[in-house]
Amino acid sequence: MEYRRLGTTGLKLSALSYGAWVTFGRQVGRSAARELIALAYDHGINFFDNAETYNAGDAERLMGDVIADLRLPRDAYCVSSKVYFGAVTDPKPTQRGLSRKHVFDAAHQALERLRVDYLDLYFCHRPDPDTPVAETVMAMDLLVRQGKVLYWGTSEWPAELIEEAHRVARENHFIAPSMEQPQYNLLHRDRVEKDYAPLYRAHGMGTTIWSPLASGLLTGKYNDGVPDDSRLGHPDYAWLRDALLENDGAALKTVRKLAPIADGLGIPLARMALAWCLKNPHVSTVILGASKPRQLEENLKALDAVPLLTDDVMATIDAAL
Amino acid sequence: MEYRRLGTTGLKLSALSYGAWVTFGRQVGRSAARELIALAYDHGINFFDNAETYNAGDAERLMGDVIADLRLPRDAYCVSSKVYFGAVTDPKPTQRGLSRKHVFDAAHQALERLRVDYLDLYFCHRPDPDTPVAETVMAMDLLVRQGKVLYWGTSEWPAELIEEAHRVARENHFIAPSMEQPQYNLLHRDRVEKDYAPLYRAHGMGTTIWSPLASGLLTGKYNDGVPDDSRLGHPDYAWLRDALLENDGAALKTVRKLAPIADGLGIPLARMALAWCLKNPHVSTVILGASKPRQLEENLKALDAVPLLTDDVMATIDAAL
Amino acid sequence: MEYRRLGTTGLKLSALSYGAWVTFGRQVGRSAARELIALAYDHGINFFDNAETYNAGDAERLMGDVIADLRLPRDAYCVSSKVYFGAVTDPKPTQRGLSRKHVFDAAHQALERLRVDYLDLYFCHRPDPDTPVAETVMAMDLLVRQGKVLYWGTSEWPAELIEEAHRVARENHFIAPSMEQPQYNLLHRDRVEKDYAPLYRAHGMGTTIWSPLASGLLTGKYNDGVPDDSRLGHPDYAWLRDALLENDGAALKTVRKLAPIADGLGIPLARMALAWCLKNPHVSTVILGASKPRQLEENLKALDAVPLLTDDVMATIDAAL
Amino acid sequence: MEYRRLGTTGLKLSALSYGAWVTFGRQVGRSAARELIALAYDHGINFFDNAETYNAGDAERLMGDVIADLRLPRDAYCVSSKVYFGAVTDPKPTQRGLSRKHVFDAAHQALERLRVDYLDLYFCHRPDPDTPVAETVMAMDLLVRQGKVLYWGTSEWPAELIEEAHRVARENHFIAPSMEQPQYNLLHRDRVEKDYAPLYRAHGMGTTIWSPLASGLLTGKYNDGVPDDSRLGHPDYAWLRDALLENDGAALKTVRKLAPIADGLGIPLARMALAWCLKNPHVSTVILGASKPRQLEENLKALDAVPLLTDDVMATIDAAL
Repeated sequence: MEYRRLGTTGLKLSALSYGAWVTFGRQVGRSAARELIALAYDHGINFFDNAETYNAGDAERLMGDVIADLRLPRDAYCVSSKVYFGAVTDPKPTQRGLSRKHVFDAAHQALERLRVDYLDLYFCHRPDPDTPVAETVMAMDLLVRQGKVLYWGTSEWPAELIEEAHRVARENHFIAPSMEQPQYNLLHRDRVEKDYAPLYRAHGMGTTIWSPLASGLLTGKYNDGVPDDSRLGHPDYAWLRDALLENDGAALKTVRKLAPIADGLGIPLARMALAWCLKNPHVSTVILGASKPRQLEENLKALDAVPLLTDDVMATIDAAL
Repeated sequence: MEYRRLGTTGLKLSALSYGAWVTFGRQVGRSAARELIALAYDHGINFFDNAETYNAGDAERLMGDVIADLRLPRDAYCVSSKVYFGAVTDPKPTQRGLSRKHVFDAAHQALERLRVDYLDLYFCHRPDPDTPVAETVMAMDLLVRQGKVLYWGTSEWPAELIEEAHRVARENHFIAPSMEQPQYNLLHRDRVEKDYAPLYRAHGMGTTIWSPLASGLLTGKYNDGVPDDSRLGHPDYAWLRDALLENDGAALKTVRKLAPIADGLGIPLARMALAWCLKNPHVSTVILGASKPRQLEENLKALDAVPLLTDDVMATIDAAL
Repeated sequence: MEYRRLGTTGLKLSALSYGAWVTFGRQVGRSAARELIALAYDHGINFFDNAETYNAGDAERLMGDVIADLRLPRDAYCVSSKVYFGAVTDPKPTQRGLSRKHVFDAAHQALERLRVDYLDLYFCHRPDPDTPVAETVMAMDLLVRQGKVLYWGTSEWPAELIEEAHRVARENHFIAPSMEQPQYNLLHRDRVEKDYAPLYRAHGMGTTIWSPLASGLLTGKYNDGVPDDSRLGHPDYAWLRDALLENDGAALKTVRKLAPIADGLGIPLARMALAWCLKNPHVSTVILGASKPRQLEENLKALDAVPLLTDDVMATIDAAL
Repeated sequence: MEYRRLGTTGLKLSALSYGAWVTFGRQVGRSAARELIALAYDHGINFFDNAETYNAGDAERLMGDVIADLRLPRDAYCVSSKVYFGAVTDPKPTQRGLSRKHVFDAAHQALERLRVDYLDLYFCHRPDPDTPVAETVMAMDLLVRQGKVLYWGTSEWPAELIEEAHRVARENHFIAPSMEQPQYNLLHRDRVEKDYAPLYRAHGMGTTIWSPLASGLLTGKYNDGVPDDSRLGHPDYAWLRDALLENDGAALKTVRKLAPIADGLGIPLARMALAWCLKNPHVSTVILGASKPRQLEENLKALDAVPLLTDDVMATIDAAL
């Protein structure tokens, strides 16, 4: 496994990490989760990503139970939570958002669900237009000072709001955010590559990217239609089916153009897509969401594929996008 | 239920909330309190107001027992306490006021009585001329940093003293007050509408107003004399009886002028009085003090009456005052 | 009882208070201590003074046991400790002084001996030339922030060192000292009246004065020689016997000049001496050290004697000194 | 025993102290450790040095058990730990270095191994090029504020990095480092005497020096070859054997020149070497590593040898180096 610093912090995350999103508590039950986390850890993965809202808290409960059961040494892995959407199906006004109350309540509840004394990473899952940035930054600062959180960050915040968080932190001697968790993949590049560019330079922020395979599109498995057993068949994924059809199916067209490049390298398209994310030095870790051991093992091969992405190959990919 | 931000903070309180003042532990015993709080919560009320001095601590004990008994999720409601008057009948010098000692002691005792780990809102119930504002602000700052209080504020402080609290906070990197709890109703407008106006603009403060019905005057029930079963018959309410007679009975005369306006809208006077408070955008929440379920349900209808208060109606009311 | 603010803080101490120095664990055993503290509390005394070094920790243990036994409400009284001399007979280098280590250790040990969660007042018993003032001020600041100490101060520090403590506090946003515990009585006036004068004005400091009767000299009981049953007969009080003889017995001569003034007022000399201390508005509280209930009751009468000390009487006293 | 302040702090350490490095858990087992620590304490040694990496945590476990077993009063001795190398044989990326995570985890684990509530001294065992100095300084600051560490410092950091730590501390109101733990002995002088000179003046730093006998070279026991029972025979000490041979055996040649000077003073070479370290006023304490009681008792005699090192003798030594 390769390890990368989270931005300019001293925390070293595995370049590939593992997240509970959409799978834990749905396709992935207790015994599968145990097998997957053990496999990930044995391959050197040291960051397990989660959020209060993933399966309404059940994803964190499952991960917490499994990690406790596996007796992983607490100082050898990192675990995250995210606050914003709430951990119940129909959150009341104080059970979601980034108010001091919910940021605190959500942290304490995540600690309990994940069965740990501190969260390594704690994210504001979205910006909250109804809470001043200063209120949220101060809440995060207090949690770090109380030893309940190590590093805090944002997820899918516009760059200017992250800048505001840094300004508030600087002016008030608050602890500033260390990382962003943005979507990043061959079909979705601009925020990470353009919008956030000043954040890396000015604040040394790291990124823990999600959806490196664009929810499966970049596996190529939808190139010939949606198979019955895919997540896409589930009513919860209507948004994804819609995305496929959006802009006259532009995304699928792009994917079909990328497939021959991967073929030319002699690797599956998904592996090339993950390796492409890893090529970006501002990506601290690429969060995998595999629901089966075989799939996770396949994804881990992306590390070895990075050297295949020479400047020429990268140029060919750019041309295809 | 409508929810409003507490000033510019991220905390969303129900526009109507419920307080223990004068009722809990007197007219309202355990089973009534349980019924009232359950009813309030089921109607979306998420803020329950209290103070150390209400019935010498018994109001907080009763509320704490009932909320624990109802198993309300801690992140779904807010509870307050207030420090100043002491929680015993004849407080000793260190058992009242806003010294660092009493602010700390009172917070810890309120946490125990209310059976919670933190107070959502904690008020300085009155200014304390014998304690420097800086000492009180620092005590509040420490309680927030220790996680025992979320938002702190004042109650019935003159605007200039609140400004001083903000100045002290700014100069010392202390956490500033977020809200005031003033009296506000058709008969008592000036402090909220005039004195505090700069506080909303400059500091984004919210208000949690008390006595929206002027201790019952605005129900119109005293228009024809004091009925035997009203609070007014109780020796403790001599002050209220006196207030009725003050200025040649000016208050009652005003109430009698307002009654026909409510009649014209086809709603009871009390409902119009509550709706009138809700019209003020600087009111974060209107604290109800109903002692009977039927009365609380009636009061909750004020939310639907707000649209009836058109500009014309508001002008007519202003003319009557 | 009269109550006075501790300088400009919001803490109100009884004008007469009660200390364990030299008596607790020697003349005063458990049942006497219980009787004396109960008597003091019943007369409105709300401050009980102590120090780690008084009888090598036993004075604090005794006081803690008795207060717990009497079930005094924690918010109704104040208790102090002092750090410097150590709580063992022959302290090792880290067991005394004002290093961060000993200031912390001593606080935690005093909390345990006194059986309380926080010390109301915590004093640096003497200056420590071997520790930077900044180290001690920071240690005190941390203890207040951790909720283990409410107000911290100094005892018998020269004014310029107290000024330095304030400067360090101001420059580093540390919590400044609130009070001094100096010796003050008719025979020992200059430090309190002259040296500390700027401290009252600039920093609003209070004083909790000790030895108001000059270790018994001002009772007049040594005017005709040292009786056998007095503390002065004890080998530990050789220093006091020496002080009596110092400067050709100047102190005793002064006391003999004061006796007729007290006679003229129709009160015992000791009562006049205590009332004289109370006349000074910069004295927050006068610490009594009575070892017998009758003596404590007699001392408490000093409060009523203050009005007897008219400007004329004060001038006569000044002339005698 | 002589006691010295740790730089300009108020902490007084014994001029000779005792460390667990390379011996505890290897040559020194439980009963020997008990005998050695008891002997050291009885001779006035009050500082026991340790590190997470010494024997992969076992040195701290052993010391913690023995000190608990001996019931040494917690305020009478100091104990240290150091963070950087990890406490397991093959540390994972988050189990070593100076990231906020490892600095926190290592502190908590050391507290548990050493069975204490706070570490008196906590060192960054080496600089970590992969962690910003500001991240480490803030982590140390938080540990001190939380009461888990009293004084923090560095070990074998270049002077410019220590300066940076002070700058970061000053600019952010963080608590600055108080001490360095450098190697210092007759064969290794420059860092302590030259590089660090500005640190003593500007920041009042102290030093807790290690290897005063240059891993045994300065005992003279290798002057005639390596005996079988010495540490040098162990495969782990290949580095030391290499050092002996380095520069054409320059170190041994120097030692052979020093031997007659010690002879001239009538003391063993080792005693002179320790006394020479003690002569330096910037040395706060000299850490001994004796593995046998007799050896420790011999080393303690160095205190009495200091007066023998007159200016003339020191000049002779300088000439020999």
